[in-house]
Amino acid sequence: MDKIYFSYSDIHKTVKVLADKVRASGFDPDVMVAIGTGGFIPARILKTYLRKPILTVGLLLYADDNKPKESPMILQWIDEGEKKLTGRKILLIDEVDDSRITLGYCLRELLRHTPSEIGVAVLHNKKKPKTGSIPAEVKLYVAGMEIEDKWICYPWDALDITEHERMAEESRRERSSREG
Amino acid sequence: MDKIYFSYSDIHKTVKVLADKVRASGFDPDVMVAIGTGGFIPARILKTYLRKPILTVGLLLYADDNKPKESPMILQWIDEGEKKLTGRKILLIDEVDDSRITLGYCLRELLRHTPSEIGVAVLHNKKKPKTGSIPAEVKLYVAGMEIEDKWICYPWDALDITEHERMAEESRRERSSREG
Repeated sequence: MDKIYFSYSDIHKTVKVLADKVRASGFDPDVMVAIGTGGFIPARILKTYLRKPILTVGLLLYADDNKPKESPMILQWIDEGEKKLTGRKILLIDEVDDSRITLGYCLRELLRHTPSEIGVAVLHNKKKPKTGSIPAEVKLYVAGMEIEDKWICYPWDALDITEHERMAEESRRERSSREG
Repeated sequence: MDKIYFSYSDIHKTVKVLADKVRASGFDPDVMVAIGTGGFIPARILKTYLRKPILTVGLLLYADDNKPKESPMILQWIDEGEKKLTGRKILLIDEVDDSRITLGYCLRELLRHTPSEIGVAVLHNKKKPKTGSIPAEVKLYVAGMEIEDKWICYPWDALDITEHERMAEESRRERSSREG
């Protein structure tokens, strides 16, 4: 299969793993910043485990022609950023670290607000060469799961959730037969 | 059972119903505004069906003592609101219409930016007397599902998702035996 399907249960369990990794690292954020729209669902689940407030930013990396741009377009930024971010400990959340362009861009923009510390937590990291980079100021980088460089089908993108969950079951069987 | 459990699949299917109702109404929004953090997951799934960008606001109705306040506290608002909301057609999204306080407050705040039209879509509406009210300017109000006034357990709040999905299965059986 060239695509990997994840069910909502898979996602929820991976967020739990992510929360455990964040806690184990000792990084205790004041606030989470979710990159929208991919980070909305992981961040909301993570809130259940870490119990921290969520701020969001909206970024668009893909143009209408579906080609990635060199840097993302800002759809929404945090109002009164100085008040909410300066001197705070921020944990940035996204669903996937793919090219790393969006993450790198967003971390640099957040660093302009001079937080006291900043870390990144992503659900999935694709094992591939990265175009973007994580600035040296970033204290923590954690991924819930390392995966191959395949097209990821997230449950929230499914038009037919029953069919999607069936495909996710198949992906799971494929993973466990390869691992076992 | 005094609580109703919904699985992620239940939620996803209810969002599909909600999308169908929005489309059937003829209300075609330029932008969705998700009320965080409850509206994040419904809005992100709704985007799959309606294909509209999402802006977010963060509102807190409950204080640390878990008692609802008279009006919510704003954790985040939309930056450059005039540019992004004035003259636009907005669809406001939340997970539940409970007391209606948060919805009423948020609609009034959004109306200050003079959108061209504004509508509301919630996943669940609790059949109960409402403390808050929907302003007369609001063109559309749709709920994916009308439910009894019980405590709703959403999947994203589950510490143990496997146990939650089992409880949701039980809730589903209870609903269908009552309806059948």
